[in-house]
Amino acid sequence: MRAAQRGRFITLEGGEGTGKSTQVVRLGAWLGARGVGVVTTREPGGSPGAEMIRKLLVEGPAERWDGMTEALLHFAARRDHLRSTVWPALDRGTWVVSDRFADSTLAYQGHGHGVDRTVFDRLYAVAVGDFRPDLTLVLDLPIEVGLARAARRRGTETRYEGLPKDFHGRVRAGFLAIARDDPARCAVIDASADVDATAAAIARAVAGRLGV
Amino acid sequence: MRAAQRGRFITLEGGEGTGKSTQVVRLGAWLGARGVGVVTTREPGGSPGAEMIRKLLVEGPAERWDGMTEALLHFAARRDHLRSTVWPALDRGTWVVSDRFADSTLAYQGHGHGVDRTVFDRLYAVAVGDFRPDLTLVLDLPIEVGLARAARRRGTETRYEGLPKDFHGRVRAGFLAIARDDPARCAVIDASADVDATAAAIARAVAGRLGV
Repeated sequence: MRAAQRGRFITLEGGEGTGKSTQVVRLGAWLGARGVGVVTTREPGGSPGAEMIRKLLVEGPAERWDGMTEALLHFAARRDHLRSTVWPALDRGTWVVSDRFADSTLAYQGHGHGVDRTVFDRLYAVAVGDFRPDLTLVLDLPIEVGLARAARRRGTETRYEGLPKDFHGRVRAGFLAIARDDPARCAVIDASADVDATAAAIARAVAGRLGV
Repeated sequence: MRAAQRGRFITLEGGEGTGKSTQVVRLGAWLGARGVGVVTTREPGGSPGAEMIRKLLVEGPAERWDGMTEALLHFAARRDHLRSTVWPALDRGTWVVSDRFADSTLAYQGHGHGVDRTVFDRLYAVAVGDFRPDLTLVLDLPIEVGLARAARRRGTETRYEGLPKDFHGRVRAGFLAIARDDPARCAVIDASADVDATAAAIARAVAGRLGV
């Protein structure tokens, strides 16, 4: 008997309003149509415990936490998400598509808030170990366009959107630097096109990289 | 002009039902009566943000988080507590007496749940740096006595009390090992005596170590 094949872990990354949540749904449907068993999820959150931590992170005033405290909370939520949702699914052979993962912590708390790279690396080693996404799609967009899109769906989760424009500029540059430094794992997707065109670009990247 | 003297940081540690909260109040009053400006606080918690994290840690089922996730949450809360409450008070020259600090994470998540010592050291370095308590009082008591006392004040914060007896045995042994390894910082206090006798033992230790 052949051992069941492990699922693949795909993450979508990018700043505010780049369309990640929509594209996670589209990619899940595209994979499902090709016979791939898939669960879609998100960070911070994606498990009951991590969703409770999410509330602390995405609601309230922007100055509620410093960057280091945020990084610790994100890795606590990530640890729970991995243990409760991601790793069990991959072990069953199911693919997992996540709206954000660790690159968001490096881009927002590292590049955005100035938390040191060695801090990120230590927390990653502690909470995640040597686990990595098989493919990371970085959705890229001018920050003005993204923030305008995000403002249109404004609900209670506005903590990051309230930060100044230069913060969002550093986050965008951070994501592009992450993709440049790890081209085997990351693909940059132009997210300024419409939803269908972006979904098609993502499908091409997944097909090309993971052979679906 | 002489620079204002920095306050001292005193932590009370120990397992469930060892009387820490009561003794924190008593020690605060004893220091105040000697003309020492003092604030009393607690972990997890002690600042508005950390108190929100506390709720995630002390309520709910015992298996809600694994030890590593708990350690990350405790250090996130600790970072906020230090930044918002402890460090500003010490900078003003005020003394701080805290019901629990980092030794609790080492005893509960390390000795109790088996989280590796190097993980604790990395998280401590990231979130706390080289800051240390000036004096740590380890309140020691047979676990059966402590758990019986804790059961009498049972409210919603029962998550740790629900863990098995051998867990609490490892926590007690962990606190004693911490005190043994760092005798310059730690004093073990017999907490099996009544409240007044324990308060007197604590006052003697503080007077002897910090010269109040």
